[in-house]
Amino acid sequence: MAQLRIALAQTNPVVGDIAGNAETLVEWTRRAAGRGAHLVVFPEMFLTGYPAEDLVLRSSFAEASIATLSEVAARLADEGLGDLPVVVGYLDRADLAPRVGQPKGAPLDAAAVLHRGRVVAKSAKHHLPNYGVFDEYRYFVRGDRLPIFRLHGVDVAVALCEDLWQEGGPVSVVAEAGAGLLVVPNGSPYETNKDDVRLELCARRAREAGCALAYVNMVGGQDELVFDGDSLVVDASGALVARASQFREELFVTDLELPEAAVELGEPSHDSYDAHDGTVITVERVLLSADPVEPYEPEPPVVAERLDDLAEVYHALVTGVRDYVRKNGFKSVILGLSGGIDSALTATIAADAIGPERVHTVLMPSRYSSDHSITDAEELVRRQGVNAQVVPIADIVSAFEKEIALTGLAAENLQARVRGMLLMSLSNEHGHLVLTTGNKSELATGYSTLYGDSAGGYAPIKDVLKSVVWKLAEWRNAQPGVPPIPENSITKEPSAELRPDQRDTDSLPQYEVLDSLLRDYVERDMGRDELIAAGHDPELVTKVIRMVDLAEYKRRQYPPGPKITPKNFGRDRRLPITNRWRERL
Amino acid sequence: MAQLRIALAQTNPVVGDIAGNAETLVEWTRRAAGRGAHLVVFPEMFLTGYPAEDLVLRSSFAEASIATLSEVAARLADEGLGDLPVVVGYLDRADLAPRVGQPKGAPLDAAAVLHRGRVVAKSAKHHLPNYGVFDEYRYFVRGDRLPIFRLHGVDVAVALCEDLWQEGGPVSVVAEAGAGLLVVPNGSPYETNKDDVRLELCARRAREAGCALAYVNMVGGQDELVFDGDSLVVDASGALVARASQFREELFVTDLELPEAAVELGEPSHDSYDAHDGTVITVERVLLSADPVEPYEPEPPVVAERLDDLAEVYHALVTGVRDYVRKNGFKSVILGLSGGIDSALTATIAADAIGPERVHTVLMPSRYSSDHSITDAEELVRRQGVNAQVVPIADIVSAFEKEIALTGLAAENLQARVRGMLLMSLSNEHGHLVLTTGNKSELATGYSTLYGDSAGGYAPIKDVLKSVVWKLAEWRNAQPGVPPIPENSITKEPSAELRPDQRDTDSLPQYEVLDSLLRDYVERDMGRDELIAAGHDPELVTKVIRMVDLAEYKRRQYPPGPKITPKNFGRDRRLPITNRWRERL
Repeated sequence: MAQLRIALAQTNPVVGDIAGNAETLVEWTRRAAGRGAHLVVFPEMFLTGYPAEDLVLRSSFAEASIATLSEVAARLADEGLGDLPVVVGYLDRADLAPRVGQPKGAPLDAAAVLHRGRVVAKSAKHHLPNYGVFDEYRYFVRGDRLPIFRLHGVDVAVALCEDLWQEGGPVSVVAEAGAGLLVVPNGSPYETNKDDVRLELCARRAREAGCALAYVNMVGGQDELVFDGDSLVVDASGALVARASQFREELFVTDLELPEAAVELGEPSHDSYDAHDGTVITVERVLLSADPVEPYEPEPPVVAERLDDLAEVYHALVTGVRDYVRKNGFKSVILGLSGGIDSALTATIAADAIGPERVHTVLMPSRYSSDHSITDAEELVRRQGVNAQVVPIADIVSAFEKEIALTGLAAENLQARVRGMLLMSLSNEHGHLVLTTGNKSELATGYSTLYGDSAGGYAPIKDVLKSVVWKLAEWRNAQPGVPPIPENSITKEPSAELRPDQRDTDSLPQYEVLDSLLRDYVERDMGRDELIAAGHDPELVTKVIRMVDLAEYKRRQYPPGPKITPKNFGRDRRLPITNRWRERL
Repeated sequence: MAQLRIALAQTNPVVGDIAGNAETLVEWTRRAAGRGAHLVVFPEMFLTGYPAEDLVLRSSFAEASIATLSEVAARLADEGLGDLPVVVGYLDRADLAPRVGQPKGAPLDAAAVLHRGRVVAKSAKHHLPNYGVFDEYRYFVRGDRLPIFRLHGVDVAVALCEDLWQEGGPVSVVAEAGAGLLVVPNGSPYETNKDDVRLELCARRAREAGCALAYVNMVGGQDELVFDGDSLVVDASGALVARASQFREELFVTDLELPEAAVELGEPSHDSYDAHDGTVITVERVLLSADPVEPYEPEPPVVAERLDDLAEVYHALVTGVRDYVRKNGFKSVILGLSGGIDSALTATIAADAIGPERVHTVLMPSRYSSDHSITDAEELVRRQGVNAQVVPIADIVSAFEKEIALTGLAAENLQARVRGMLLMSLSNEHGHLVLTTGNKSELATGYSTLYGDSAGGYAPIKDVLKSVVWKLAEWRNAQPGVPPIPENSITKEPSAELRPDQRDTDSLPQYEVLDSLLRDYVERDMGRDELIAAGHDPELVTKVIRMVDLAEYKRRQYPPGPKITPKNFGRDRRLPITNRWRERL
């Protein structure tokens, strides 16, 4: 057996900031060297950030990625770090003649091994995900190489993210070609309960490959996606060895005992293998160092404590806000505070993400606002120390009503729009990012005003069902310190307060019942018959399907927010607008 | 040789309206029988409408399509139309075990042949487009069958849309298997100048297949897409025989002399062919009728007159508005009329699309509005007979300014937002669809207010560069009848009138110069070096790249409109929002 100390760089790259990400690579490699690591592994597409969407189709972007990879390899050597091999994801290009249907420039979701100033091996993702949030057939062509580099006597293979999730391909080739360790850079977005699936998957693939597996994931928010870290190492039997923290940047170091390579290295160094998925993969063997390291005392492996399910969701939301603000170059956020639970939770998430001093709230009472709407909001301001101002909307609404006659829903929407406009105006004047406060239950059923409460740049809780909003508020209040959310905001009956004595239940079913149905209809795409077979009340199914389908039109115009479940709105649920399909009701 | 009279059903299906589309199929088949046709061909995915986006992943939708196909076959026979074979596109499913990465339910972009009450042959699109507006790897699995049915002694093969655009696949198999006619149902969206490309393509594929080719395209608007019809027939040498009109529903009938089939039909009726693209295609032969029809006097072939380039664009815009209004169930539209060219052209397009009596305009003068902004708008109202009302915004703006202090851009945006809110309020009150009036040059450079002039359900000219806006206005005024657009709206210098003496050229370059640069940067994805090499001024390149990149964030929130060029905003230009990539400036 041979020893290796591996460092998994659970980092937070910025999409498009190739120079900044390269800087991070050098800095973290220096830290890994300081920790005595023999190998450092960065996430998928680390150099460009991920997902880079249509940027990967732009020539100048691909060229910058490729050039920077070589430059950073040379720089590592210049700075005395050349002997520490680095595995890093980047954007490359396949050497293919252009053809119809192939993405422009034949981009590759690639990984490289950097050593002694040079790029010594390259590969690219073989399996391309093209479901849910992923569009990778649009962006990439398939990789067909598996690098295996010998490091201190251990053969180390490199595969990428989706290569674990599908059958055949690099993992099955590792099983035949033999390796002591499989390292896997990932860009794997958070979804509720995905961590359990991920561990089971890594364990299964390690057994299949017949070697230990080191999984490194990125961390941080990127537009609608949140990456949760959760990097981990399993041994060849699939047993968990070490596991990094969730939602936090971390240089995660683990000592491993690994089998010495048995294969004789010689010419030719390339071999073709059946990948058991109808394709052929070429193994490319590279020798970095043949002899095992001198025996040393290993550090005990770390298994970070897991967050419980509500804590995970809360951290995902905070991470989403923090990185959307930072990566877009905002200094502060602004939001309307109604005294209700949705805006209270959103303000709390924002304060936890960027500090209360950078959170600006606006209380915008109307002629229909209850007294507690102001007092509950003021109580939250007092507890959290966020900035607050009061802007009454009655006179502005009157000015509109003097010019045009409005009734019913149009009059209700006007109030929501005046508030949205006030927030956007203050945002334009002072540079704050506008946060919207709508939850998933409201948005799914269309209980929201276009250009009103839905106006803003980021929607922190847009993928959180209302019943989960309450649970998160209670969870957050149960954490150490002053409970940030006034109890009255949690316990009072929800109301939009757009007309006298309005209650959410005037238009919507009880949220527990509604949310269970929305999970099945929106997230699981069940049809009417399936929903009824799953035990939902037929009359309610009819009503809710009608509401959700009618709300589709608005949803296409809704701004991005974080994604924490397998399905959310907008990009994930691409239904045509001019669409006459209705479930048979 | 044998004669065949073929009818190409250049129709306008509604996405999701399976029952309505089936009704249209029966009605048009009856008309084709009345015209003495021997074969009628409907467009791609006709039964479901196209593109159906994520609807194809819903079980109940796929089941309804498959069931309706059988029902409509039976109904045709019941109504005495069973002897006339029908080729029609629909949504089917492949019989595949589910696997990761495969779309849910393994949907097929399928075509069927209906005859004597039964579905006698099925196939599905082999090449799936996954570029530009197409996401078909997300939605479909590949078809691998080529039906060849013998009709009155002529072998007729069926391929689908993209199968023409890529090398290998069904067309190359037709060349080997032999056929007298290749019929191709299409859903091919309009782009400027695409008609020329389409004819050349059909000619080339006919020569390659060694037989005549009948190309039937759908017509009409579907959200961001507009289908232009332009169905056509070429002979085996690639020469144009007949060509249908553009942007109009039409049952297009053509008589053809075709070679009699030479292949002996017998068991087995299936043969496997190398598709020359790494796959294998199975030919499925079906006998409908062996003997040629009695000789008859053919009708002379029709080649419809072509629209010139500006007329094409104008028809595409009118079609987009008309179908968005109709397919979404609106009765009327509303828009702001500023006296400027953009709103004047938009109003004219709307009036041409649905009639001036269903167009509602609102004149919303502010303290900065010039006199001619009102008089030019009133002149348009007078010429076209659209509905009009005047709603001054000064008092509403003052009411806002009494509550919050706004300066500069924030104060300018407020005016645009008050106007957007008035239109949305009137829309909510009276049920009109709000049309926005922004053009592509403005939107690309961010010269637009989020939730202000960009607020609305449909943006008729969002993909039209400003220099083309002027050309379209002049073109429309040159048509027979009263020139609908006041000359002063065309000739005056453009201004947003959001502050005293404002001119577009305060912030933007001259539009001719700007638009040429936008074509290369936005539509052709050129990088900075390429743009300069193409002859653009380096300083202007720097400035415009900066403007366009900064406007990305807004664009993701912009509502849909028609698509008339290879690239537009939003869905086509998917750049991450939190993106730090900038062209090196």
